[in-house]
Amino acid sequence: MLVVQKYGGTSVGSTERIRAVADRIASTASAGHAVVVVVSAMGHSTDALVDLAAELADSPDLREMDQLLATGEQVSAALVAMRLLTMGIQAKSLTGWQAGITTEPVHGNARVSQIDTRALQNLIANGIVPIVTGFQGIADGEVTTLGRGGSDTSAVALAAALGADVCEIYTDVDGVYTTDPRVVPNAKKLDDISYDEMLELANLGAQVLHPRAVENAKHFAVQLVVRSSFTEGDGTNVVAMTENRMEGRRVVTGIAFERHVARLAVVGVPLEEHALAAIFSSLAENGVNVDVIVQSVVDEVAVDVSFTVNESDLGRAVEVVSSLQPSLRFRKIEREAPLAKVSIVGAGMISNPGVAAQMFVALRDAQVPIHMVSTSEIKVSCVIPADLVEKAVQALHKTFVEADMVTPLTNL
Amino acid sequence: MLVVQKYGGTSVGSTERIRAVADRIASTASAGHAVVVVVSAMGHSTDALVDLAAELADSPDLREMDQLLATGEQVSAALVAMRLLTMGIQAKSLTGWQAGITTEPVHGNARVSQIDTRALQNLIANGIVPIVTGFQGIADGEVTTLGRGGSDTSAVALAAALGADVCEIYTDVDGVYTTDPRVVPNAKKLDDISYDEMLELANLGAQVLHPRAVENAKHFAVQLVVRSSFTEGDGTNVVAMTENRMEGRRVVTGIAFERHVARLAVVGVPLEEHALAAIFSSLAENGVNVDVIVQSVVDEVAVDVSFTVNESDLGRAVEVVSSLQPSLRFRKIEREAPLAKVSIVGAGMISNPGVAAQMFVALRDAQVPIHMVSTSEIKVSCVIPADLVEKAVQALHKTFVEADMVTPLTNL
Repeated sequence: MLVVQKYGGTSVGSTERIRAVADRIASTASAGHAVVVVVSAMGHSTDALVDLAAELADSPDLREMDQLLATGEQVSAALVAMRLLTMGIQAKSLTGWQAGITTEPVHGNARVSQIDTRALQNLIANGIVPIVTGFQGIADGEVTTLGRGGSDTSAVALAAALGADVCEIYTDVDGVYTTDPRVVPNAKKLDDISYDEMLELANLGAQVLHPRAVENAKHFAVQLVVRSSFTEGDGTNVVAMTENRMEGRRVVTGIAFERHVARLAVVGVPLEEHALAAIFSSLAENGVNVDVIVQSVVDEVAVDVSFTVNESDLGRAVEVVSSLQPSLRFRKIEREAPLAKVSIVGAGMISNPGVAAQMFVALRDAQVPIHMVSTSEIKVSCVIPADLVEKAVQALHKTFVEADMVTPLTNL
Repeated sequence: MLVVQKYGGTSVGSTERIRAVADRIASTASAGHAVVVVVSAMGHSTDALVDLAAELADSPDLREMDQLLATGEQVSAALVAMRLLTMGIQAKSLTGWQAGITTEPVHGNARVSQIDTRALQNLIANGIVPIVTGFQGIADGEVTTLGRGGSDTSAVALAAALGADVCEIYTDVDGVYTTDPRVVPNAKKLDDISYDEMLELANLGAQVLHPRAVENAKHFAVQLVVRSSFTEGDGTNVVAMTENRMEGRRVVTGIAFERHVARLAVVGVPLEEHALAAIFSSLAENGVNVDVIVQSVVDEVAVDVSFTVNESDLGRAVEVVSSLQPSLRFRKIEREAPLAKVSIVGAGMISNPGVAAQMFVALRDAQVPIHMVSTSEIKVSCVIPADLVEKAVQALHKTFVEADMVTPLTNL
């Protein structure tokens, strides 16, 4: 069996942890499996590098940030490899470029465009365990990174390219929970979750799996397992929707939330055809990720466009939008922060039209005002004041998970 | 003018220091010079990585050590570049492989074999300051390093390849001293020193300049300046011997010393033709640097071979030599540590036959026993007990430098 194992930052956060990881890799290899390992940077080392950069530049050059941050995974990969070698396990660390991972020529948030697996296949064929740096690749001779949490994406991309039987994501929790146990102590571990549900949960800040990793896993049908590197246990299987699930046992699978949300409103944009396109393509070009978008027509000549971004991108977003003033001639920019976003996610919602309403009722009863709403087929998100996020999540978990809601038969 | 500036670990040891370095680079660039910068890893970051490795493996794999240690310079190069960019100076960090630095395919102590300067020339032509990671290169797609202190070598090699007008080595001292001021408080800064003297001083542990860097500077006639990045000042020029110097004003230019010396003796080696060759080529293949070598014939059938290595290499050296026992059939291995080496260096010695004798007298008067002796045309080294090194250096500085010896006219 060919297994891709990805170890996150806390899993390789100390030399003691690296020993434990090496033991796990060794026992998988000893069981006769071919293993390809993907590692993140040690613990908070990436944050330390980001802090150094922040001391030197207000908005550090993105290309140089990639050169800087890519070192974190190179350190942990080399350490894991040398530990395995000491144990008598053949291993070799590879940077993104050494592993043949090519990305788009974009800095800070590149997508994997191609993987030349020859180097890896060659190592596997020779019984050598490749330890690949997650989070990074190369484009035109330049080091690129996949964005925070991108090591998951690296692991899934490698699993897909190599045709691995399973991609195990090792982290510091023992699986995917109905919500964050730090906020709701009786949150439950899920044995399985569908790609789509996981995708919504990941996008909404559950922080267990990087959204693009889930997207790729779904697209390439990579079997994912989320599991703790600290304990033994089955973890959570991320799978295509099963028959069992089609029966709609759960309406809401999990409650996700995201802090550090900021809202920006472009007020009084003349009703031209391409205002939305101009704003959001310009933000995209400048690497600002936009989440919820709401456009409302003010009168016959102007619209207001509101959207949320990560709080850390607010400054840049304002800069980008301000630069469009001469052409778009909007009246003003308003900003609001700190905000948060809470979401309910579940494949069962597709057949349950009343779920959004139940969410609004639950939040109203908890006295949580809703600033923006966004929906998809399997989730409903509300943007709320940042200081009410715990209260909101607890209320929603009680309503949707603890009540153990099942789809009314009439909706099947 | 094309200037190569190399900044050592303490010069880029904090973000505050990196700001100062960026200011200096900016002012050189603003003065109309083309600048190519070479940086070491920040402060003690390389030591921290070495410590991590030591926690995971007794003798870490050399290839993985290179993957690990190369990250240190990548961090500082990216930080310097982003600082310059913030100041409005066009700059770009380059790893060894991005800068086109090819080395021999050896790990841990590789020599630069070739520099493809196209990437650098292209940046210079476009007014962009390249910030190159010192200490590293690439060989067959593998990251290689030049050994500790190898950033000096990188700087000189780049200066030679680019035909730079001067190579400025910035460090935490304001030049080359007659000896270490921490040991001899009235040590004097030298305004100039010849390549050969510097080479002996560097090899003997003066730690201001990496020996291979001086060797390359001499070979390619690169003009070197050693200078402080903390203060302004002319520093010390490292030059070919000048006419002034040919007049022999100084007999001894400096007193160098090296701690952490270990002696290994291979006792009772049968008098075969290739014993020395076998021992030292095997040590070289295993990356153990040997310094002083003494062979003494014991009787008609056997010889004793003694040599010194760095204390940290002693274990490996013993291992390597032990493995030769079956073929060399020596009687036993003896080891001695900790030892130190003190040396007097000066081009003036060539014409002063009595200098070695004066050194032995000075050490005898200071009650420092001499375990081994080694000489070259411009230096005399003595291996002594480690705990007597300060005493020995002070005695030698007093005899040769403070007495301000000049070559007796009769010897000219």
